[in-house]
Amino acid sequence: MGASDRPSVLVDGRVATVVPVTDRGLQYADGLFETIRMHEGRAPLWRRHMARLAQGAERLGLPAPEPDLLAQECAQVSAGLPAAVCKIIYTRGSGGQAYTPPQTPVPLRIVISREAPVLSADGLAVTFCQTRLATSPSLAGLKHCGRLEQGLARRELVDSGFDEGLMCDAGGQVIEATSANLFVLRNDILYTPDLANAGVAGVMRELVMERLVAEGCPVREEALSPEDCRQAQALFLCNAVRGIMPVTRLEVQNLEVPPLVRKLARDIAALLDGGVGRGA
Amino acid sequence: MGASDRPSVLVDGRVATVVPVTDRGLQYADGLFETIRMHEGRAPLWRRHMARLAQGAERLGLPAPEPDLLAQECAQVSAGLPAAVCKIIYTRGSGGQAYTPPQTPVPLRIVISREAPVLSADGLAVTFCQTRLATSPSLAGLKHCGRLEQGLARRELVDSGFDEGLMCDAGGQVIEATSANLFVLRNDILYTPDLANAGVAGVMRELVMERLVAEGCPVREEALSPEDCRQAQALFLCNAVRGIMPVTRLEVQNLEVPPLVRKLARDIAALLDGGVGRGA
Repeated sequence: MGASDRPSVLVDGRVATVVPVTDRGLQYADGLFETIRMHEGRAPLWRRHMARLAQGAERLGLPAPEPDLLAQECAQVSAGLPAAVCKIIYTRGSGGQAYTPPQTPVPLRIVISREAPVLSADGLAVTFCQTRLATSPSLAGLKHCGRLEQGLARRELVDSGFDEGLMCDAGGQVIEATSANLFVLRNDILYTPDLANAGVAGVMRELVMERLVAEGCPVREEALSPEDCRQAQALFLCNAVRGIMPVTRLEVQNLEVPPLVRKLARDIAALLDGGVGRGA
Repeated sequence: MGASDRPSVLVDGRVATVVPVTDRGLQYADGLFETIRMHEGRAPLWRRHMARLAQGAERLGLPAPEPDLLAQECAQVSAGLPAAVCKIIYTRGSGGQAYTPPQTPVPLRIVISREAPVLSADGLAVTFCQTRLATSPSLAGLKHCGRLEQGLARRELVDSGFDEGLMCDAGGQVIEATSANLFVLRNDILYTPDLANAGVAGVMRELVMERLVAEGCPVREEALSPEDCRQAQALFLCNAVRGIMPVTRLEVQNLEVPPLVRKLARDIAALLDGGVGRGA
């Protein structure tokens, strides 16, 4: 199938541009999503995305997703794109009585593709957003469809001169950026915010932590304040679409990118863009 | 138009059963809703619903909704139903770049009707849900589309023998029921949870507070613990669809319904079902 024939959206496996108005994803944000980088039809982090989606489905009481079916649909929508991002949305479907979900949900499956952004080694200018992330013990870690706070935070960044914004939870602890997880180097120790009560447990965050441990550089999951970030030697952000994003400016302060972060960024870029054969 | 010809869903004013897959309501819960009780084509709490929707739109940076248009569409979808519930969903529409909203959003407007439940004076059996509500200073009070926590809490109630469940926020304070606000009578003083950091500021809650003040019975908005509820003389729930719902059992404890609550329930039922001419 040529790029021009490529369907960019599949809904329950069929080319479509619409979903039922009754879908609980629309009505209540009752669903999950994954945003997956593909390189020539292959998704280097596929297993991690599917594991998180399955865990999320279990937490929400949704039937387990079917990875083989989803893989086929991601391949179909991204055919002809050398570097693509596939977004899978997996909702509880329709039915139930107002907030009460249906006893036997029939999930709705949406797969959407777009061209992937070029992986860049340029650093980001980052600030703190005023919009707070929810402290939500029942939903923390999940990549659920309720992302209104992220949208409000992104509105703050428009025309601000900053590329990304760090978000604090209700208690004022730094949790993550609007669309990336955060790592902080301070006193030669790497930290990443604890996500027990807020935030999205990113698949790239997980991979980065494993790689750093393997290289003898463990990461501490702890509560971090804005002041901890301001006093850091270095910061970087990461997600599954853009890999490692070093922070070269936090508010008015310029930051160096240490060799460790440069090397990690190169390694992850090679992995995401297919330069290495090793799994992740 | 007879009941059989009645369209049950209008999307942007047209009879429809689907919405664009790109809608930010679906993608990110980036929208608001109202659930409005209609009696013979009239919505007794219309002005309050429209005021809350307008305030929510302002907080989210959405264009102001058009009440006259929405009134016409609610009348259209509920024609032929003596007692209807109209749900209005008002999203940011499509566009933007991932979480970043479009600079000039073109909202999507969905109006759905169903038969209204019969107003009942029967008391409810209520328990505490394990699912926590988010503590979310940036979204507190808003009736936004992210209602996943309410759905998970309702799942706990299925086959539990309880009609409703009280939900605590991340800090363990009681905020509201899954689909109703809460009032607690304790030491002859009426309380309702403070909603500065969590919960939905219900239009019925607002009306009830005004009525009670007018009758010389002010309500204190304070933090309330589960223990405060267990030690109460009486509790009642309220929402715009079902009016006043006295609690006659909390967990294993039976509760009386005081005359004040009975009278309030009668007054609100009369208002909702059109028995009184006075506005609200």
